[in-house]
Amino acid sequence: MTGVRVSGATRLYAVLGDPVTQVRAPELLNPLLAGLGVDAVVVPVQVGRGDLADVVRGLMRVGNVDGLLVTVPHKAAVCAVADELGPAAAVTGTANAVRREPDGRLLAENFDGLGFVRGLRAAGRSVRGAHVFVAGAGGAGGAVAAALLAAGAARVAVRDPDEARLAGLLARLARPGAPTQRPGASTHGSAGAYAAGPGDLARADIVVNASPLGMRPEDPLPFDPAAVRPDALVADVVMKPHETALLRRAAALGRPVHHGIHMLENQVTEYRAFFGWPENPAAPADANSGMS
Amino acid sequence: MTGVRVSGATRLYAVLGDPVTQVRAPELLNPLLAGLGVDAVVVPVQVGRGDLADVVRGLMRVGNVDGLLVTVPHKAAVCAVADELGPAAAVTGTANAVRREPDGRLLAENFDGLGFVRGLRAAGRSVRGAHVFVAGAGGAGGAVAAALLAAGAARVAVRDPDEARLAGLLARLARPGAPTQRPGASTHGSAGAYAAGPGDLARADIVVNASPLGMRPEDPLPFDPAAVRPDALVADVVMKPHETALLRRAAALGRPVHHGIHMLENQVTEYRAFFGWPENPAAPADANSGMS
Repeated sequence: MTGVRVSGATRLYAVLGDPVTQVRAPELLNPLLAGLGVDAVVVPVQVGRGDLADVVRGLMRVGNVDGLLVTVPHKAAVCAVADELGPAAAVTGTANAVRREPDGRLLAENFDGLGFVRGLRAAGRSVRGAHVFVAGAGGAGGAVAAALLAAGAARVAVRDPDEARLAGLLARLARPGAPTQRPGASTHGSAGAYAAGPGDLARADIVVNASPLGMRPEDPLPFDPAAVRPDALVADVVMKPHETALLRRAAALGRPVHHGIHMLENQVTEYRAFFGWPENPAAPADANSGMS
Repeated sequence: MTGVRVSGATRLYAVLGDPVTQVRAPELLNPLLAGLGVDAVVVPVQVGRGDLADVVRGLMRVGNVDGLLVTVPHKAAVCAVADELGPAAAVTGTANAVRREPDGRLLAENFDGLGFVRGLRAAGRSVRGAHVFVAGAGGAGGAVAAALLAAGAARVAVRDPDEARLAGLLARLARPGAPTQRPGASTHGSAGAYAAGPGDLARADIVVNASPLGMRPEDPLPFDPAAVRPDALVADVVMKPHETALLRRAAALGRPVHHGIHMLENQVTEYRAFFGWPENPAAPADANSGMS
């Protein structure tokens, strides 16, 4: 792992979660920032549910904090702290990135879904016309479902034991103006998102665990990979452990698998645009110009 | 500069200041922590005066923030945010380090003075019996004056254009029970701390700039080094720039000089005890045990 040079002039990005030890963003983004000549460091910030609003407001008053990344369990709650929501955050009710606008307002947006879909494409999986099963209607599940629909998935069956949460997500996904509602798309060609029923898991081309199940060794499997089609892709959004119990089991059953890290890796392009990082490495002379 | 490895399991220390780009603690302490096998990173945090209390309370609610270092202009204000003051903080009314006690209370203490005196000794300068002139009765000045007296300085003449601030510091330094009042020390042998008058600068064995003057290129000199004795040591607590205008001028006049960085370098032993860092490097297998 490449080390980060931290000085008094270094800018900060915080990754908010609870727990936070599993987050991969520091290891993924710090070498990228260094390579771009951005004098900034991404650090983990463990914050409990009850403290989120105070910690976010406190951090965003810090002059050299340029942004936040947000993970479980704060992706929904951070939307209430933000002053403005980007389109994906509005439809999913969750966000995973926050920046300070020039007027001081906090803008929250969700790039999980875009990252997930980019990751599927990078792995050679077509999303257009696909039938997808998503376990989990929380932050990641909503983001993944919305992005899959926006990318042309035919059906997205979502399962969540919390019926109110599931119903809320389906209502937001169906709202006119949601980025999931493609202009000119025929409603006949797409069943959109709906509550998963019996048989949806077995019929899907792609099955996704978008719940936190798998982060802890004692977690049950989010679904039984033996019940999916032999050619269906079994994807996980859990990043740590890299090999979740679900993916291990699916691989043992011969199913193709797709790791959680791809969702994060494939968000880098979006983060770069959102946070204003340069697209190309600065010349060495520029890299330290903030230190004078 | 050695790079820092940051993962989701990394613990945080924040250096609070405004401005903050000049702080040297990240560059000094991060390689030390890495060498000790402590998975932690020291980061700069720029916070304005009006936001200090909110930012401190927010940061100390972050589960993986283990402590704060505090610099200009917050050294006095942070004492009001803390729940408890260590002995040096109590006498100086300023603190430069904050930790969370097991019961959640915030303990603030000031190690600037101890670090400064350790630095003088390391440079071969005797403090016992010395006559010292200190410019600045703020955070650093109070800490330096208190530690000099506790270390046996005969006289500490303090100058500050803010008369109320100077009077407040002198009253705290004279208070019974202050660590500056050495048990068994004869009051006849020590004039203690007093407001500098004409001639004190010219008589001193050691002259110290403990004001922020010198951080900005346009600052005036805190005093004229041509007025000090040719053998007097000219010391600065300003760390950035390393060569302040005062030290450059003093050196040009042939006076021995003592750089600001020594005050910080020589606080490392105190930080280690205060924050509970190990005294010796952990075995490599232990260094990453928090990442599992």
